[in-house]
Amino acid sequence: MKRVAILGSTGSIGEQAIDVVAHTDGLEIVALSAHERWERAVEQARALGIGRIAIADPGAAASAARAWPDGEVLAGMAGVIELITGSGADLVLNAIVGSAGLVPTVVALSEGIDVALANKESLVAGGELVMALAEATGARILPVDSEHAALAQLIGPERANGPGTIERLTITASGGPFRGRTREELAAVTPDQALAHPTWSMGAKITIDSATLMNKGLEVIEAHHLFELPYERIDVIVHPQSIIHGMVTLCDGAVLAHLGCPDMRVPIAYALHHPERAALAQVARLDLATVASLTFEEPDTRVFRALAIAREAALAGGTAPCVLNAANEVAVHAFLEGRIAFTAIAEVIEATLDELGAEALREFEALLEVDRHAREVAAGAVKGAGL
Amino acid sequence: MKRVAILGSTGSIGEQAIDVVAHTDGLEIVALSAHERWERAVEQARALGIGRIAIADPGAAASAARAWPDGEVLAGMAGVIELITGSGADLVLNAIVGSAGLVPTVVALSEGIDVALANKESLVAGGELVMALAEATGARILPVDSEHAALAQLIGPERANGPGTIERLTITASGGPFRGRTREELAAVTPDQALAHPTWSMGAKITIDSATLMNKGLEVIEAHHLFELPYERIDVIVHPQSIIHGMVTLCDGAVLAHLGCPDMRVPIAYALHHPERAALAQVARLDLATVASLTFEEPDTRVFRALAIAREAALAGGTAPCVLNAANEVAVHAFLEGRIAFTAIAEVIEATLDELGAEALREFEALLEVDRHAREVAAGAVKGAGL
Repeated sequence: MKRVAILGSTGSIGEQAIDVVAHTDGLEIVALSAHERWERAVEQARALGIGRIAIADPGAAASAARAWPDGEVLAGMAGVIELITGSGADLVLNAIVGSAGLVPTVVALSEGIDVALANKESLVAGGELVMALAEATGARILPVDSEHAALAQLIGPERANGPGTIERLTITASGGPFRGRTREELAAVTPDQALAHPTWSMGAKITIDSATLMNKGLEVIEAHHLFELPYERIDVIVHPQSIIHGMVTLCDGAVLAHLGCPDMRVPIAYALHHPERAALAQVARLDLATVASLTFEEPDTRVFRALAIAREAALAGGTAPCVLNAANEVAVHAFLEGRIAFTAIAEVIEATLDELGAEALREFEALLEVDRHAREVAAGAVKGAGL
Repeated sequence: MKRVAILGSTGSIGEQAIDVVAHTDGLEIVALSAHERWERAVEQARALGIGRIAIADPGAAASAARAWPDGEVLAGMAGVIELITGSGADLVLNAIVGSAGLVPTVVALSEGIDVALANKESLVAGGELVMALAEATGARILPVDSEHAALAQLIGPERANGPGTIERLTITASGGPFRGRTREELAAVTPDQALAHPTWSMGAKITIDSATLMNKGLEVIEAHHLFELPYERIDVIVHPQSIIHGMVTLCDGAVLAHLGCPDMRVPIAYALHHPERAALAQVARLDLATVASLTFEEPDTRVFRALAIAREAALAGGTAPCVLNAANEVAVHAFLEGRIAFTAIAEVIEATLDELGAEALREFEALLEVDRHAREVAAGAVKGAGL
């Protein structure tokens, strides 16, 4: 039995991970954490027979403790850390949303525990430090989002064919709901329009990132760290059907691709069961004759500027990706609240990056301060760009 | 240095293999054989500094011997066998066309020499015996055609993820020049029309097989033997762009695919260099944004009956695939000579299979007699179906 701790158990990834564990053999959930949805977390713990959970929000943790006298409720980030270190887990699934996910990733890797990583920020903001830590402790990072899970499945075996056979990586983008629009048309789109994603059902933040193409910028940064390839060898291609999730171009011109019906249980199960592949009968099988056509186009980075800005921050390196990520969170939040226009998301990020620049990054502790400062600067930029 | 013998060196695969060896490191050509194009074979031997070749056609062998006094020319099938056994080769590339390729495959495998196999008939006619021989001597069979090389690259690494993770294989078909035609329209097509293949440039026999879809029937039989999957788990899908060469559906719903610009040097190089992947700078890289669209449809086996007939022969097993292959060669030859209509190719094959049925197959020697007899019966059927 592989012992699994699930952080962010009440979110979309967490719930699907519990479903995957229930429907496959060889995994046992030994710990759960949630942010503030304590009622659902307690319900999950009871159903799974777990005696201890962590709730990051202190008020929610107190409510959970009162409502669940038979169980133990750890509170706050300290509680999440204690949950990880005391869990005896072989694998931590980190499905925490946002930069709050960084510390749990660092704690798990420090303990030598493998991390199934659904938290983009761990690699976007702290990629070099996180990868170096994993290298030092021998813990593995198993990506959970569909693009990187696809690439990992292609790259892992290929590396056995010799060093240097991987020429390029290609990450596919659905293009979001605004594919083909002009800059002028984008300026007027509403949050409701931006939240209507054509192929994947996801949380609000990531759906907006998908509409701006910032999610692809963040994924390029993740791929750079996970697979140790320079940025100029990582491409993004728009593929509206979202059937191909990732591709690897090899030194002989062959391209390996990973396809499937969009279903997050596939990458979740792959990460949880690695290095084995578990059968998932409940996942719909791809029928290409019914799909009939897969299409591809270059992303229009003049209209979807966030992707170009993300690449610039990635190349600048150091603290710039952390700033990029923090500014994006602030800007997306402001857009969702109707405070700035859709096109101002990129403007806020760019203004924040311009002001803060890129500095060398030597320790995790600095990241939290960079993140905080970037949010402050971005909040100022939001005011300047306000509707 | 890996020592390579090339059988069928003057054909399209043989010439491209020589090109691959010239442009990559680690391979040395130590022996060549050809059927009757002795002038080109002698030219190749001189250019490569090889002292001994085999020419299968006795008359051509005599001409070669007169024209090349400095070299040794082995004659006939006995000469080809002597070339293989005396070559000291680590790998034999068998690019002989037709059922004449079976004996060389058997000889190489018996000697424990790995075989890069471009000769379909070895597996179509003698699949069970050939695979059992390879198993017994420990020699490997490395497929050279694009579909099976693609599948081998996907299946080999996947088998490391545990037994039974492979659910289905999918072989792609361009659909040939007559995709979308009706049975009535097919009856009137000429050899010239059938020889105009939309995506691959190949020999006449295989181009006609591509137009009837018989090539996919033969490839299904090859895949069944190479990858040890039952026929009901091997699909054919029509994909006119020929960009995806093969796909593997896994037990979690993931599909791995092998893509690339159509270029036979890729599978040839992969087989010659296995288990390493050599860089091929001269091969065009796939640019999906330029390709723009990949399309898929089910093959129409009511119109392209050869595919359905091949599946029936495959399921019947025993001698039936050998009969299928022999009858197809006779029928295609008759069509190319204008003696029967395009749609009569399937009729001749079906009539031959109906007459000969399927018998158990226990030894290679029986195959040659089955092949000879099937050609006789097919020749009679050609007369009956004559224009």
